[in-house]
Amino acid sequence: MTNSEQIIMAHGSGGEMMRELIAKYFVSAYGAAELKTGDDSAVVTLTAPDQPSQGQQLAFKLAFTTDSYVVTPLFFSGGDIGRLAVSGTVNDLATSGATPLYLSVAFILEEGLPLATLEAICASIAATAAEAKVSIVTGDTKVVPHGKGDGIYINTAGVGAFNNQQPLSGRFCQPGDKILVSGTLGDHGVAILAARETLSFQAEIASDVAPLNHLVKQVLHAAPQTRCFRDPTRGGLAATINELASQSQTSMTIDEAAVPVKVAVRGAAEMLGLDIFQIANEGKMVAVVPPDQAESALAAMQADPLGRDAAIIGEVREAPPPGLPAAWLRTALGATRVLDMLVGEQLPRIC
Amino acid sequence: MTNSEQIIMAHGSGGEMMRELIAKYFVSAYGAAELKTGDDSAVVTLTAPDQPSQGQQLAFKLAFTTDSYVVTPLFFSGGDIGRLAVSGTVNDLATSGATPLYLSVAFILEEGLPLATLEAICASIAATAAEAKVSIVTGDTKVVPHGKGDGIYINTAGVGAFNNQQPLSGRFCQPGDKILVSGTLGDHGVAILAARETLSFQAEIASDVAPLNHLVKQVLHAAPQTRCFRDPTRGGLAATINELASQSQTSMTIDEAAVPVKVAVRGAAEMLGLDIFQIANEGKMVAVVPPDQAESALAAMQADPLGRDAAIIGEVREAPPPGLPAAWLRTALGATRVLDMLVGEQLPRIC
Repeated sequence: MTNSEQIIMAHGSGGEMMRELIAKYFVSAYGAAELKTGDDSAVVTLTAPDQPSQGQQLAFKLAFTTDSYVVTPLFFSGGDIGRLAVSGTVNDLATSGATPLYLSVAFILEEGLPLATLEAICASIAATAAEAKVSIVTGDTKVVPHGKGDGIYINTAGVGAFNNQQPLSGRFCQPGDKILVSGTLGDHGVAILAARETLSFQAEIASDVAPLNHLVKQVLHAAPQTRCFRDPTRGGLAATINELASQSQTSMTIDEAAVPVKVAVRGAAEMLGLDIFQIANEGKMVAVVPPDQAESALAAMQADPLGRDAAIIGEVREAPPPGLPAAWLRTALGATRVLDMLVGEQLPRIC
Repeated sequence: MTNSEQIIMAHGSGGEMMRELIAKYFVSAYGAAELKTGDDSAVVTLTAPDQPSQGQQLAFKLAFTTDSYVVTPLFFSGGDIGRLAVSGTVNDLATSGATPLYLSVAFILEEGLPLATLEAICASIAATAAEAKVSIVTGDTKVVPHGKGDGIYINTAGVGAFNNQQPLSGRFCQPGDKILVSGTLGDHGVAILAARETLSFQAEIASDVAPLNHLVKQVLHAAPQTRCFRDPTRGGLAATINELASQSQTSMTIDEAAVPVKVAVRGAAEMLGLDIFQIANEGKMVAVVPPDQAESALAAMQADPLGRDAAIIGEVREAPPPGLPAAWLRTALGATRVLDMLVGEQLPRIC
């Protein structure tokens, strides 16, 4: 049996192979229209009961998303699997423009997990949920035998409401729009790798994992025509830009010199041979904004403690000619190269 | 380190140890009011946007639930992990009285899983979702290294709407109510054990795994004052009855002679030393109904192909005197014994 007939690690790395797996196995078998949009949250419509006095049904829009977390190690500089599990789902809801409200937390625990570890993770879940102002309303617990898990896996799902906000989507990006990122790239992925390999760098490198729903809300207030948000997690900025360009049938160009990266993270990534644009982030948000609202959006990001290092990093252009790539990088040296999606595996299991 | 300081298999068996884990670690750390109710689905309220013409906000009730599935083997007589993952979450939503609408499906795949296995499971997910009339609108894929999983773990979360139905809860059971079950007990747990141990019985024993939302709807139509539903999964009927009695501060008595059990399943359970009341079911529903609607509810169950063997199996009574158990079994021999919840582990990983 060849690799192509089995699951390999690269199927989970957020790149091209995962995209193929999703299209070929999941969407083709059971994909509803909402699953096919390619956004991080589904936007579904519920119909309110008949209002006899009103003579019409009220449609109510809801954001709904899920993510499992299998990170190793469970604790790392800047966070832990519990903070990751709450932040990731809150951020996926926030990308749609919804206000995250309710989360589920489901554990798969490995026999032998110290209860003190579980307790510490639960405390982190509680603190992060309080920070994001979401309630954990339902859950599940399964136990698997020693050797059939990795300490603890967590799934969170979440629902959010739109109130007066229209749902956002990567489909809405238009030529001329500006691309913003809320801060430095690469912090999470490098911190995880450092913790796993017990590498020590001169400077402390900490994960950026954080719930960004409040930051998103401020950006939407300052720049109401924002087209979409996307958190550049697995697959990094490269995957995000490729996905957004594909969804909106545009091309996008990122200006390398404008992308904020911490000096220590850049050095560590170079030393480890990692592409900073393919490393996962867990506390950063990409926004695509019409040009006349880009400065307002930037100011709103920078006013948030989690967005101090925000920058305008690129722009949306017309669709590429047939057969040409849609995501480009203008390098610091002035050349232009394709902003490739990860094909194989870079950093497995970092979220 | 003693067992009490680590996760052991019994923490996942749906009995007393799991209840303690949930109370001590999860509810105490981050339990919102909805998590504390003890029902299978949370009922949360969303507020619709202001309707200027109306001058009041509309509150919209939603059921929300989650479950992870870690069953081994992945395929068994009567079903597979995909059918289980859809049915389980559909049934948990249905117990609240909600109409299940949208599901998420999140996979944790083990490196080396044959893609043909994944494809077969996806086909089963699709077929079961179609049967239940729910849409799969969002998902996630993670891959863990060989030896850190068990082929495939699936988490499903789901949302449902109440339309004109008031949410149901185990809290609403009252003395005098009748307890119904929609069919034979023990089929799923015994089928799994048979598949795992490659036991062969003279008669085919198949899992009952199925989505029961249509059956629940018919019962609610026939018996609108139904207090609650509960699917007796992990921990079996014993856990369900103990939980419902505890939630409603009543006692409950089950009449052993009235409980439907297939002859082959009873024989296999006796041979294996299993208590039929503690074995998991995945296609059965317990309903608690006021006495004057019990016959209508029973007829509605029996009219559904998934409820042909339904029976009235017991009744709700006053709260027990302080210190006495709340769940009782009137045995076929005329004695009365406590209907104990599972304390340790009976059948691990059967859902």
